[in-house]
Amino acid sequence: MARWKAIVAYDGTDFSGWQVQPHKRTVQAEVEKGLTRLHKGEKKKVVASGRTDAGVHARGQVIHFDSALQIPGSRWPSAFASVLPSDIQVQAAERVSDDFHARFDATAKEYRYFIRIGRMRDLFLRNYVHHVYANDIDHGAMQRALRALEGRHDFSAFCASQTHVQDKVRELTTVTYTQTGEYEGYFRFYGEGFLYNMVRIIVGTAIDIGLHRLAVADMERILHSRDRRQAAQTVPGQGLYLWSVEYERRS
Amino acid sequence: MARWKAIVAYDGTDFSGWQVQPHKRTVQAEVEKGLTRLHKGEKKKVVASGRTDAGVHARGQVIHFDSALQIPGSRWPSAFASVLPSDIQVQAAERVSDDFHARFDATAKEYRYFIRIGRMRDLFLRNYVHHVYANDIDHGAMQRALRALEGRHDFSAFCASQTHVQDKVRELTTVTYTQTGEYEGYFRFYGEGFLYNMVRIIVGTAIDIGLHRLAVADMERILHSRDRRQAAQTVPGQGLYLWSVEYERRS
Repeated sequence: MARWKAIVAYDGTDFSGWQVQPHKRTVQAEVEKGLTRLHKGEKKKVVASGRTDAGVHARGQVIHFDSALQIPGSRWPSAFASVLPSDIQVQAAERVSDDFHARFDATAKEYRYFIRIGRMRDLFLRNYVHHVYANDIDHGAMQRALRALEGRHDFSAFCASQTHVQDKVRELTTVTYTQTGEYEGYFRFYGEGFLYNMVRIIVGTAIDIGLHRLAVADMERILHSRDRRQAAQTVPGQGLYLWSVEYERRS
Repeated sequence: MARWKAIVAYDGTDFSGWQVQPHKRTVQAEVEKGLTRLHKGEKKKVVASGRTDAGVHARGQVIHFDSALQIPGSRWPSAFASVLPSDIQVQAAERVSDDFHARFDATAKEYRYFIRIGRMRDLFLRNYVHHVYANDIDHGAMQRALRALEGRHDFSAFCASQTHVQDKVRELTTVTYTQTGEYEGYFRFYGEGFLYNMVRIIVGTAIDIGLHRLAVADMERILHSRDRRQAAQTVPGQGLYLWSVEYERRS
């Protein structure tokens, strides 16, 4: 028996998120079903770095699983391809020590959130970016506002109110917005850990600043209020990508 | 009653093509159902510039229909948006003369076909480009080979064999391949008319030339053979887009 770490990409459009739920199509359920097929019916489980919600995509989700199959790392992607649906892709796999844990050993994650602005949405991007219905947006104001968030803060204001986590202090190393076209851009979040819906509430607040519904200084004011009701609405899942997960190299 | 010309975009992924077919989800059926709802149940029909096959997309399909509704041209897109599924989008509408016909009056069409080359497909583009499994492709060879096709020719070699059209002479004003990245590019076809599967058979043949399975000079040889069996396989629909349809301005 060996433990494997694998990088998994998925198109979240047709999934009710990562985690197994009764009567729902989820990524975890499909990956476990595929892995079970590769093991000729022997029930297999996988552990991910964390959940993703309905509609949210992953470029670089990381999972671990145990297997007695004699498959070299370079062959796992094609083995998985033979049993997975077309909206999940295992991109790489490597053997890791038996105590490696995809969730507990993760040291940092990067999320990206893509937006597009205009009076008419781009049909072909409807499941892959968040469309902001407006004539224009102030890209610079969003960039400036995000600076208040870098560093170690209590992010209670940007955390879904139903969360039961006590400690809402997190450190975000990078929070940036990059304009990629006159009407498009993406947010990048890099940090050791994230609260539930944190990225999507921050992005919603930044967009309100870009639309001049809020001022640049309001981002800092809202952060310090620690009051979820001060921040803007949670933006939808389809613009969000779990971009990568990092693990400290153990020597 | 007024006649309207409208520009329609659709994501072909979940459709069995344009044309109404029993028990199949088709774009025409959805557009007619939506239009019928806007007319409070009065059965409405639409006529398109031409059909598209299963999985094929449209950026600029053109349709016409008749309506007694007092809706200004600028409001048709939002009226349609209220009754159409998210994978069809009416982008513009204008009043035209009562004898305008979306199919018979079309004077030229543009199709584009997008490809990507590599050992691993891009998950998020799986329904939007054709993935060529190879390490590399000779973009220049494809560009050079296509030159033989520009102009007026008998395109029998590049026409699905089950076609019943007698006259297989067509004039292609533009046939080009544009490389947009190390591993991606698109084909552009502009002409007065196209035979069934013509674009997809030409692209399949060009790809074989790009992969050096065929020589650049084989394109011209195959064209002159007028023999479908000489050309390569038809490439899949998901890389193909009906890009635009032109109508001569009538004064």
